[in-house]
Amino acid sequence: MVLDEAGNLRDIGEPDIDGAFLASGGVARVRAALDRGDLPIVAEEGLRVGAPVARPGKIVCIGLNYRDHAAESGAEPPAEPVVFMKAADTMVGPYDEVLVPRNSVKTDYEVELAIVIGRRARYLESREEALEAVAGYAVANDVSEREFQLERGGQWDKGKSCETFNPLGPWLVTADEVGDPQDLALRLWVNGELRQDGDTKNMIFDVAEIVRYLSQFMVLEPGDVINTGTPAGVAMGMPGQPYLRAGDVVELEIEGLGRQRQTVGQA
Amino acid sequence: MVLDEAGNLRDIGEPDIDGAFLASGGVARVRAALDRGDLPIVAEEGLRVGAPVARPGKIVCIGLNYRDHAAESGAEPPAEPVVFMKAADTMVGPYDEVLVPRNSVKTDYEVELAIVIGRRARYLESREEALEAVAGYAVANDVSEREFQLERGGQWDKGKSCETFNPLGPWLVTADEVGDPQDLALRLWVNGELRQDGDTKNMIFDVAEIVRYLSQFMVLEPGDVINTGTPAGVAMGMPGQPYLRAGDVVELEIEGLGRQRQTVGQA
Repeated sequence: MVLDEAGNLRDIGEPDIDGAFLASGGVARVRAALDRGDLPIVAEEGLRVGAPVARPGKIVCIGLNYRDHAAESGAEPPAEPVVFMKAADTMVGPYDEVLVPRNSVKTDYEVELAIVIGRRARYLESREEALEAVAGYAVANDVSEREFQLERGGQWDKGKSCETFNPLGPWLVTADEVGDPQDLALRLWVNGELRQDGDTKNMIFDVAEIVRYLSQFMVLEPGDVINTGTPAGVAMGMPGQPYLRAGDVVELEIEGLGRQRQTVGQA
Repeated sequence: MVLDEAGNLRDIGEPDIDGAFLASGGVARVRAALDRGDLPIVAEEGLRVGAPVARPGKIVCIGLNYRDHAAESGAEPPAEPVVFMKAADTMVGPYDEVLVPRNSVKTDYEVELAIVIGRRARYLESREEALEAVAGYAVANDVSEREFQLERGGQWDKGKSCETFNPLGPWLVTADEVGDPQDLALRLWVNGELRQDGDTKNMIFDVAEIVRYLSQFMVLEPGDVINTGTPAGVAMGMPGQPYLRAGDVVELEIEGLGRQRQTVGQA
């Protein structure tokens, strides 16, 4: 689906927005079809909204990338990006249920700017090349189980890859339409209470640096998703540590990228 | 491809051995076709051997799972499994070139028993259910860059997801043909010198426990690969730390699962 200027949802006439779509110039194809008026309007009612990128090959995450979140986590601001991974099959739609895992008491939220890669990136040499590899941006909730992540021996991934732990979307907004990715407000509410209120200008490592840096350590492929870190206000860092429980409603938005809403359930 | 009793390679007549193949009873289908004599013999010459599972959704890894390797790494044996992830697109065939990343001085090898999941696994309650979720086993080389993994700020994944860092195969040997997965010798040589010489009986957490445990933290899907840890003898733990360099030849084998051979190149 694509949103036209008049606010109508239109069928893009391709099976999926995925790595193959992005690598084969799908965005330009859809834009041309939209300009020609070739895309049929779709009725919104009754549709489930999935994530705006299908089957990413990997979800790479940057940790402690806002000074205020590093401080609330009791960590020094990192000297170079902290990198971890989430299982790609944790991705769900922006309005899907998020499940508290069994035996979890510390399920937490994190609003993040997600980068979607549009072009293969390997040993990039400049910030310009890095930004050219970005297809667009989306809202992500990098849901995290803090006990699994931090108190169960070893690496963070254990608390990051639980079922439903990566709502993405609703929109993939192309890089040209976003403009400056370092000038976006991010906010997250739980049951209507504002918990996170940040701005991507406060990232320690910005989008261009993250993509350039990651490409020195791994090959980024079209359709891959990068979560760029969260600002302060997660439950772990708040008085009383108000972690998520079944029945809670989480809403998050990033300026220009739309708004998510998840009801929390119990696995 | 499948190997028949007479040692002939036969075309399985399906596009790929992947999650969909495994989830839909592909192993039984191929076995029946093989028994009926329906599968044509394929000439081995000139074929490149790919990994025996196509496009795994994720590669999950268990760290420090042999007491001798934990000791050589200067770590205590873990109280519960240490879990990290590798990008799934690091997977290459068993005879493919392994690339030392640019700016790497500590590229290391790790022979490991890889589990291939055959059935969706979520909150498994017993060791029996865990073993039923296993389609089979393969040899893996969990190639690791130790400086990226341990000295560059934070999580291990940064040194585990470089291009070509997960040779798998040559064979996926089904669980029934392997018998006891905790009674297999593993060995690895560099330029003909034996470096690792272990046995899966010395795992701290065995295959059944690893699968049961992981299923409490994430959903395992058909085609997913789990690297179960490496015994002692990695370059990091040896006198002089003889890390891999371009031109080195790495050979590794696990009893009953076949032998890999990689030439090391430079990215």
